[in-house]
Formats: sequence, C-alpha cells, structure tokens
Amino acid sequence: VSAASPEDELWASVTPDAARRLLLAGLECFAAIGVDATTTRDISRRAGMSPAAMYTHYPSKADLLFRVSSTGHEAVWHAVEEALRTADAPPERVAAFVRAFTSWHARHHRFARVAQLEMRGLEPRARREVLDLRRLFQPVLETDIRRGIELGLLAPVDVTGTARALLSLGIDTARWYRPGGDDTPEGVGDLYAALALRMLGGSPLATP
Amino acid sequence: VSAASPEDELWASVTPDAARRLLLAGLECFAAIGVDATTTRDISRRAGMSPAAMYTHYPSKADLLFRVSSTGHEAVWHAVEEALRTADAPPERVAAFVRAFTSWHARHHRFARVAQLEMRGLEPRARREVLDLRRLFQPVLETDIRRGIELGLLAPVDVTGTARALLSLGIDTARWYRPGGDDTPEGVGDLYAALALRMLGGSPLATP
Repeated sequence: VSAASPEDELWASVTPDAARRLLLAGLECFAAIGVDATTTRDISRRAGMSPAAMYTHYPSKADLLFRVSSTGHEAVWHAVEEALRTADAPPERVAAFVRAFTSWHARHHRFARVAQLEMRGLEPRARREVLDLRRLFQPVLETDIRRGIELGLLAPVDVTGTARALLSLGIDTARWYRPGGDDTPEGVGDLYAALALRMLGGSPLATP
Repeated sequence: VSAASPEDELWASVTPDAARRLLLAGLECFAAIGVDATTTRDISRRAGMSPAAMYTHYPSKADLLFRVSSTGHEAVWHAVEEALRTADAPPERVAAFVRAFTSWHARHHRFARVAQLEMRGLEPRARREVLDLRRLFQPVLETDIRRGIELGLLAPVDVTGTARALLSLGIDTARWYRPGGDDTPEGVGDLYAALALRMLGGSPLATP
C-alpha cells in the first residue's frame, strides 16, 4: 500500500500507528475475501503483528469492522460539511453536496463497497450507530432543495425522491468506479453536480 | 413464498417445476445468508427435495448461481426490449428504457442484490457470460441519447457519463427499495424517467 492510498488519507489521524495499520489491514482483507471469510489472524498478519497485539486495539473482528465503517462514514460526512461551508444559495449548496459526496465515493470506492456489503456483519448496536450516520445526509439535501424551490431558484420536484436519487447516484459510484480509467473522482463529481442541477431545473452554470 | 412473488414471475417459464423451485430456493438462501454460507443441502431442503435430486438439474451450487443470475439478466433485458417496442422518438425511448429498467430493479430487488453481490461466486466462464449480458444495456441508451442530441430533441451532454448515471440509478434501486412502503416500482420508474428527461434537457411532458 503506497503512502498516498485513499485509505491512508481516511485514517491519517488515527493513533497509535498500530491501530491505523489494523484498520487498513482489515479493510484490505474484507475487500479481498469478505468479512465472513476473514480471520483475526489474517488481519493481524497483514498488519505485521500478532493476533494478541490486535486484541489490544480491537477486541474482535466485528469491533474492527465497526471502526472501519464508522470512521469512513464520519469522513464522508466531514467532506460534505466542508464543501457546504463555502456554499450559500441552495442550487450552489446542492451542487457542492453532490460533487463532494460523489467524488468521495469514487475516491474511497473500496471502503464504500465494503461498508455497503458488510452491514450485516455488524453487531446490532454498531449497526444502529452506522445507520444513524447514514441518515444524516438526506435531510440536509432535502432542506436545501426545499429552500431552493421556495425561493424560486429550483423547479418544484418530488423532494424526497429526488434527494434519494442524488444520494443513490453518489453511493453507486463506489460499485462501478475503478481508478486508472478515463474518469477521475473529481470529474464524476462535477458531472453529477451538473446532472443534479438539471434534474432540479437550476441553471447548470449557476455554480463554479 | 406466495404464488404472486416477483421471483415466481421471473422464472414462470422454467420447466420442469423442480428446476424452477430450485432456482427460487437458491435465490432465497443466497439472499438470506450469502452464496459462500449456503450449502447445496440448504437449497435442496428448501426446495423440498434430496441433494441427489438437485444434481439432476444443476450439477453444482455455482451452476445454480449462474442460472439464477443469467435468467434474471435476460429477464431485465426482455423488459427493456418490450418497453422500447412501442417507443419511437429518442426522448420517449430514453424515458421508456429508464422507466422499465428502474421499475424492474425495484420489483426484483432481492434478485438484483444477489446478482450484484455474488458476481465473484461465478466461475470465470459464467462470469463472462453474465458480464456480456450486462454490457447490452449501455450502448442502447447511448445510441438513443446521441440520436436525440443530433435531432435537437435532447441537450448536448456527456453521453457516456449520463447513460452510465441512468443505469446506475436504476441498478441502485435494488439496494434501497423495500416493498410495502410509500413507493411502488412503477412510481420510482416514473420518477426516474422524468429525472432522466430533465438531465437530458428534454421536456418532462414529452412522454405519457
């Protein structure tokens, strides 16, 4: 794994280093063979430590999966929040949201696929926490779309259905996106932001 | 399983009845616990027959998975072909495609999730066959979008990226759709057909 991998960026702030390496090793194993087939021995070996050393940081495979999943969901939430910080008018905010959310899912496609596929590997309480994180996104998008319609800046649409479609487009990017092709995460993000404004009847040129 | 389940419809023409019941039992097991965890014994028991009787119809679990996946992909292809048969102008054809493709994925959400998640459970040759079926869709959509742009009926867009986005929206419906809520497969199909025409700058009222 190169120092510049998307997952290094994802967990850059996790300390100590051993805990960070275990998250990365866990994600790599889960992505390669699935959570069910992965043993704690596989993970610790890939992280270059003993199974006993792993338990110091994560008491179980399910706990490690929860930490992988929750930190990733927090990261996409922060990416969206950061993008919205400099956006003001509703069309601009919707475009900024879709651009950040989509490009994040393309960049972190490996993480996002694992998080999506392996929800059922989480303990019930961990699953609820991750679902709570996932539920943060739609209300923000709906509020901006609704405000845009009220201000006459966006066309009247099915707010819930359209917001869900925009999230769906971003999430599904992780399924098909592969690095090294013609598409960059930023390019897909820009395209989907433009498509979002078209869906909402806003001018595609209203945002930078 | 009630007689009116979407999977009964999917495999209505499969004979003999035992083969049809095995496809359904396989899908139910795969959806509940995944392909890896499912044994041929689980499948045959659920279909009400002996493991030996199952081998008469499907020589292995991988073969049954292939038959589940390929028949499903053929079914969505036929649904799209059927919808396009009565559509003529490019905007109408794009809307008909998106409507049929999306509502099919909502209706057959359980099948589509299994087919999506379990691609790696297929043997290489079976995997290629299913991938060939999956590749049929995008060129059809791209041709109609391109023709619509040439005729001045659709706005100039990134044809490949927009076609992929429309397929992505339809496919991802299977991830989030659950029957019994406020949404029907037809309702989601209609919404996404309208969003598609907006994305492409066509009039949302150009189709029935």
